[in-house]
Amino acid sequence: MNKRLLLAGLAFALAAGGAQTAFAQAKPEVLVKQRQAAMTLQGKYFGPMAGMAQGKVPYNAETVAFNSAMLDALSRMPWDGFAAASKDATVKTAALPAIWSEPAKFQEAQDNFQKAVQNLVSVSRGGDEAAQKAAIGGVGKTCGGCHQNFREKQQ
Amino acid sequence: MNKRLLLAGLAFALAAGGAQTAFAQAKPEVLVKQRQAAMTLQGKYFGPMAGMAQGKVPYNAETVAFNSAMLDALSRMPWDGFAAASKDATVKTAALPAIWSEPAKFQEAQDNFQKAVQNLVSVSRGGDEAAQKAAIGGVGKTCGGCHQNFREKQQ
Repeated sequence: MNKRLLLAGLAFALAAGGAQTAFAQAKPEVLVKQRQAAMTLQGKYFGPMAGMAQGKVPYNAETVAFNSAMLDALSRMPWDGFAAASKDATVKTAALPAIWSEPAKFQEAQDNFQKAVQNLVSVSRGGDEAAQKAAIGGVGKTCGGCHQNFREKQQ
Repeated sequence: MNKRLLLAGLAFALAAGGAQTAFAQAKPEVLVKQRQAAMTLQGKYFGPMAGMAQGKVPYNAETVAFNSAMLDALSRMPWDGFAAASKDATVKTAALPAIWSEPAKFQEAQDNFQKAVQNLVSVSRGGDEAAQKAAIGGVGKTCGGCHQNFREKQQ
């Protein structure tokens, strides 16, 4: 597998202005399913890193690097799933109405998360365990930025 | 957002040998949920491109570039979710026993898919519509390579 290619692909996509949305004509239920899938996978790749930052899981630099790279892509995926059309979904969702009544605040929370992920991606190259754990903690805080205000409290 | 950083993150992860698995100690049900989430998102980003290749959706080079980049990451995500432990999951899954009884064939199908995605990522930079549509078709064929032999027929 050519490792340079996959980097170049994302570089090109972003340089070109990056259609940051896959396709906006999905059914409401599909939008919900897709955004929930993105959150599920953010959990898959962030969870082990959070465990490392908390000292519950042995630190592993390779896992931090790989999981950060996956989180980089995943951090871009949920947001178009909160399109206005998704409000009509008849499936279970913990999304709160504030998502649509406070769009600027919701956007800010997304931006904070994406910035924190970019910071983690950056330090994931450095091999400095302390800096990486701090960056992981920074991402964790921004998860809360959305979950506290825009998601129903989980039991 | 620093566009170079996110590329460098994945470059580093892969150059370092890349732990291609997030963390192997999840519960069987979680493994199933995570791998299904990855498939859901592959559909989200591949679907519009398949539509373009089939002439059902207007061709858009930016969407091809961005969606290919997302698919690049997503193409790496489902496989550790098929760990042997996931066979014990009590949730609904279309995964067939051949996944575990024919691991070499399953691996080959994964490899074919990932190679086809890398090819798509490569040509997604070129702006040649015909080549991109051909590469999209190539990915579609390799989806079938798994779905025909390793997934229950969908109704």
